[in-house]
Amino acid sequence: MGGDRAPEIVLKGANIAADRCPELHFLLFGDEKIIAPMLVKLKRLQSRITIRHTDKTITNDMKPSQAVRNGKGASMYEAIRAVREGEAQAVISAGNTGALMALSKILIGTVAGIRRPAITSLLPTSHGEVVMLDLGANVDCDAEILSQFALMGQVFAKTVFSWKNPSVGLLNVGAEQQKGHDEIKKAASLIKENYPQIDFHGYIEGNDIAKGTVDVVVTDGFTGNVALKTAEGTANLVSEFLRQTFKSSVLAKLGYLLAKPAFHKLRHRLDPRRYNGAVFLGLKQVVIKSHGGTDAVGFAAAIDVAVEMIKNDCLAQMTEQFALHHETPVAAVV
Amino acid sequence: MGGDRAPEIVLKGANIAADRCPELHFLLFGDEKIIAPMLVKLKRLQSRITIRHTDKTITNDMKPSQAVRNGKGASMYEAIRAVREGEAQAVISAGNTGALMALSKILIGTVAGIRRPAITSLLPTSHGEVVMLDLGANVDCDAEILSQFALMGQVFAKTVFSWKNPSVGLLNVGAEQQKGHDEIKKAASLIKENYPQIDFHGYIEGNDIAKGTVDVVVTDGFTGNVALKTAEGTANLVSEFLRQTFKSSVLAKLGYLLAKPAFHKLRHRLDPRRYNGAVFLGLKQVVIKSHGGTDAVGFAAAIDVAVEMIKNDCLAQMTEQFALHHETPVAAVV
Repeated sequence: MGGDRAPEIVLKGANIAADRCPELHFLLFGDEKIIAPMLVKLKRLQSRITIRHTDKTITNDMKPSQAVRNGKGASMYEAIRAVREGEAQAVISAGNTGALMALSKILIGTVAGIRRPAITSLLPTSHGEVVMLDLGANVDCDAEILSQFALMGQVFAKTVFSWKNPSVGLLNVGAEQQKGHDEIKKAASLIKENYPQIDFHGYIEGNDIAKGTVDVVVTDGFTGNVALKTAEGTANLVSEFLRQTFKSSVLAKLGYLLAKPAFHKLRHRLDPRRYNGAVFLGLKQVVIKSHGGTDAVGFAAAIDVAVEMIKNDCLAQMTEQFALHHETPVAAVV
Repeated sequence: MGGDRAPEIVLKGANIAADRCPELHFLLFGDEKIIAPMLVKLKRLQSRITIRHTDKTITNDMKPSQAVRNGKGASMYEAIRAVREGEAQAVISAGNTGALMALSKILIGTVAGIRRPAITSLLPTSHGEVVMLDLGANVDCDAEILSQFALMGQVFAKTVFSWKNPSVGLLNVGAEQQKGHDEIKKAASLIKENYPQIDFHGYIEGNDIAKGTVDVVVTDGFTGNVALKTAEGTANLVSEFLRQTFKSSVLAKLGYLLAKPAFHKLRHRLDPRRYNGAVFLGLKQVVIKSHGGTDAVGFAAAIDVAVEMIKNDCLAQMTEQFALHHETPVAAVV
């Protein structure tokens, strides 16, 4: 029931994802009176859906603490509980981000050894994609939390996208060792010390994200959120200027018509729907946040992320890696 | 002597700026043996330049503390000193940013009441420009420092660009009151409390920068630097995709040829050289940092910023505004 055009785009998105993945089954949490009539048109989906009726929802203006206190029975709450109870393997929501994170932390919990889950997503680069975290879950991150993000991102990139030896960079204001604030410097030391299995590139700068200098970009949730939204804003600005350019003369309009098929490819490469589906990485189960303003194609992409995480057993790897590191040494003393 | 192609682009930039501003005179600090032969070709500039010879320079790999300890006699050091001594009204450098800031703080000092200078620059938006600070001088900023940036940015926008009642936004991870970390929340309160003369918009997000939601964007130097470089990286990525698009088919190539004149306009709008010249705002004198990789056109733009600040008496306004606020109340007690 979450997002700007739910449950319509959720159903249509599920329909697209179901076509791509024949073994997929959906538990739909929401208002059956609204959902059932919409399903009539989606024939093939009907047999692969179970509706769990509730007319209670968590609204976008609700604070995380309110959602935790009063959420029981709401569609988001019950969907997360279904994952905890093993009825489903992943939850996907386009609703209230803060509420989804708070409820997931409480109902599902984090992998042993991981202090904080991070919002993790793919971003486009000049020659492919980059994994970036945290994109907004934790506005304050100390050095240990940042260092854990490095391992979380590396395991995610390795298992879900099969990248061989993903390199990890720490977002900073310069590449030199003395740059940045104390927590960044400590985080760099901790990564080198605690996780020698990581191909740690060191510091990177903002322009390195789109350049694809590294495979995984690690940063705190404040900086990551600002960087992500600044990138979106800049891409929109350049697109807007481009539109104006093509309207500025008759020749330019004609030029646009000729180049139109090529432009469709460009639009596809930068299509934010392709990158929809942010993972709440570090939780014991798969929780995916879809953009609230996306459409069916975008929502299907978010479902795809969940499918890939499950198929590639990402969280088992995550648990193993953190168990290896955080094992408490046991000594038998006589 | 600073920057990738100094002193050549510095001289050529001075030549361009001198043409635009007939009353401009330059003191050039650097190696006369290199500068003098270059001046031969720039006839009109010769009469408006005084060379102060020194063959000592501050290199790019020098730490700020080294520059402070051993800088005496170097071109950057002596240029800043000339401003302090009143021989020049502004210093413009394409050299080592950290050294320029450290030397300026020590030799020139900050305006009474201002705790920290901020790197301040214009950025393009969909309908004009936005002033943003801090772009990298202070990686750690407490609430008071952030609140001062708001007034510094407002005075700069008002005096230098004659914007009537510039609105100021605080960069955050959401527009709602409860978003962000403690220092941001405290900074918002301080701005409202201490500077009622500011049209304070409240929080803005990363995408609001390019949207032009406000006239002045306030943030700490860490976030500001990452945002600026992320925006640059994204603009480069889209340009790169665009180039590939136009090369992808014969029709697209033909389309590009037709739209070429319009594209020149687009390139001009996004030309980073137009936005070259970051102000170290908050110092008692005008200090401008040019990008190290710019060319003569970009360096001239940096000189223009200095000229506008002087012509519009920006720093007198700054001093007055902070004096008003920080005046110590005096009570006569009998």
